[in-house]
Amino acid sequence: MSDMTNRPVNRKIVLVEHVKGQVKPEHFRLEEEEARAPDDGEVLIAVDTISIDAFIRTSLNDWEGLHTQTPIGGVVGTLNVGRVVESNSDALAVGDAVTGGLGSQTYATVPAATVQKIDDSLPLSTYLGALGLTTGLTAYFGMLQVGQVKEGETVLVSGAAGAVGSVAGQIAKIAGAKKVIGIAGGKEKCEFLTGTLGFDGAIDYKNENVDARIKELAPDGIDVFFDNVGGEILDFALDNIRERGRVAICGAISQYDDHLNVKGPSLYLRLAERYARMEGFTVMHFMDQYGKAYADLSEWLKNGKLKVVEHVEEGIESFPIALQKLFTGGHMGKMLVKV
Amino acid sequence: MSDMTNRPVNRKIVLVEHVKGQVKPEHFRLEEEEARAPDDGEVLIAVDTISIDAFIRTSLNDWEGLHTQTPIGGVVGTLNVGRVVESNSDALAVGDAVTGGLGSQTYATVPAATVQKIDDSLPLSTYLGALGLTTGLTAYFGMLQVGQVKEGETVLVSGAAGAVGSVAGQIAKIAGAKKVIGIAGGKEKCEFLTGTLGFDGAIDYKNENVDARIKELAPDGIDVFFDNVGGEILDFALDNIRERGRVAICGAISQYDDHLNVKGPSLYLRLAERYARMEGFTVMHFMDQYGKAYADLSEWLKNGKLKVVEHVEEGIESFPIALQKLFTGGHMGKMLVKV
Repeated sequence: MSDMTNRPVNRKIVLVEHVKGQVKPEHFRLEEEEARAPDDGEVLIAVDTISIDAFIRTSLNDWEGLHTQTPIGGVVGTLNVGRVVESNSDALAVGDAVTGGLGSQTYATVPAATVQKIDDSLPLSTYLGALGLTTGLTAYFGMLQVGQVKEGETVLVSGAAGAVGSVAGQIAKIAGAKKVIGIAGGKEKCEFLTGTLGFDGAIDYKNENVDARIKELAPDGIDVFFDNVGGEILDFALDNIRERGRVAICGAISQYDDHLNVKGPSLYLRLAERYARMEGFTVMHFMDQYGKAYADLSEWLKNGKLKVVEHVEEGIESFPIALQKLFTGGHMGKMLVKV
Repeated sequence: MSDMTNRPVNRKIVLVEHVKGQVKPEHFRLEEEEARAPDDGEVLIAVDTISIDAFIRTSLNDWEGLHTQTPIGGVVGTLNVGRVVESNSDALAVGDAVTGGLGSQTYATVPAATVQKIDDSLPLSTYLGALGLTTGLTAYFGMLQVGQVKEGETVLVSGAAGAVGSVAGQIAKIAGAKKVIGIAGGKEKCEFLTGTLGFDGAIDYKNENVDARIKELAPDGIDVFFDNVGGEILDFALDNIRERGRVAICGAISQYDDHLNVKGPSLYLRLAERYARMEGFTVMHFMDQYGKAYADLSEWLKNGKLKVVEHVEEGIESFPIALQKLFTGGHMGKMLVKV
């Protein structure tokens, strides 16, 4: 802990200007500096992986009073995993694996109390994907607690090749669903769903008639619809919902561009005809059950029932492009930057 | 049972032409004839009251293949209560009170098996309103099973002065809701809700800002919203729904005029933010629980906890005008024609 230690160089991505509209690489710049020495109670962490999440985009706006706003010249706030390389705290030792908000950089010096020690018998990036709050845990609670999937049921997932959807569909199979159908954009993603992830069917919304394909793949209708997309896909699902069916509203990525003019589901009266329900949630609503979720998901990962789906960009330099890709699509599973 | 009996004159309302658009008195004609003698197994019933329901309108369309279509010159199909005046069946005796589909007429000769004997310790019309399937029982299951109202909760009802809404709001109070707020059109209806029916608050959607008034009357939000109306009122309710709130979708009278262009609730993502649910139903989904519902509702009627709200038009001649009024509004509670 001597202050004479030769510290590594921290390479960090900082914001050049606030973002209006689409986020682009030119909004960022790479800077280098010596990593800061940990003060009393702090640790220096070597960042392993950066989680690329949609909420990052919001922090780049030029809005007054937003707590998570990234200042010009500042590091972008992100969720990360890493390892302690220098400790000035009794809580963490050198070599400990941790997760927390470390930002878009290769090294971070933070109070030990702001990060959480994690078990490294699984790859660290798992804590941002299959075991991440906004990914694996969201899928877990959405499918099991909100969707209440039961053995023998038919399940439809939109955004099925995405970070949450890919886990949600696999959990439905683990829970005993008879048929799990995913909706995704493009042939490659659809083949991935049925070929690699074990989905029973896939619908390519870019090239197929979604309504007709649902009716073809699930002629008796849908028991659980896990929705990440909204818009007309939600209406197609409602049109095919079964008596006592459940729609779990996780997100509505088709509607975020114009959040003041969201298209509500015009077929919502199917809920009355079929005594069906539509229920929304966020992972925060299940905070008291995180322990059980971590245990279940870890077990499924270890015994291979749950496959990790990650899209990894390499190197801190790729952070801006990874963030852009998150919104322009084309990737599968959880978007990560390995630094 | 002699065929020499002098039978009463049946006065019946028959359809003159199929209806396109708004139903009007000129679509009907009053005819008279001697009531028909009951055949073996049949009874002659003196109709007491005709229930005026929205489904009647559908039967007047000129659509091919609709089972309930009323033919030109035919009596209009309705739900009724009445008393047996002549019986050719062992199942029913003269004087028995019955409910069933007897049509828009003063006498009906029907198979005894097609009507149901009812207890006449309550006024017969109760079986079309507070104890009617499409009215009292719908409100009962919607509020208790779908809305799952609990003691101390805050409840909002749209179409609150209507046949279903007026019962739903009263049931919420009986179930222990702390605050029941009704939305209705006009000052008179609102005063009726708070003055006569015991609602804690009322919102006049014709003259008040519904969203602002909900926030004023329920600053902590709404636990249960019982919706008969849809459209922007559903959005206002969603905007004020509480964490774990329930929206019971009973109907969407604002959207029936143009059922191919229903406005879906654009604020449905509030469900996700608040871990709230929207669930639809029809009374048919609770067929196995009708017995308990009749027992509860009858008890509440007898001990005065539940007030009957009826709009009664007098005389068979008033059937066409009562039907028109059902859609043009202005009435409160269950629309009936006493013949």
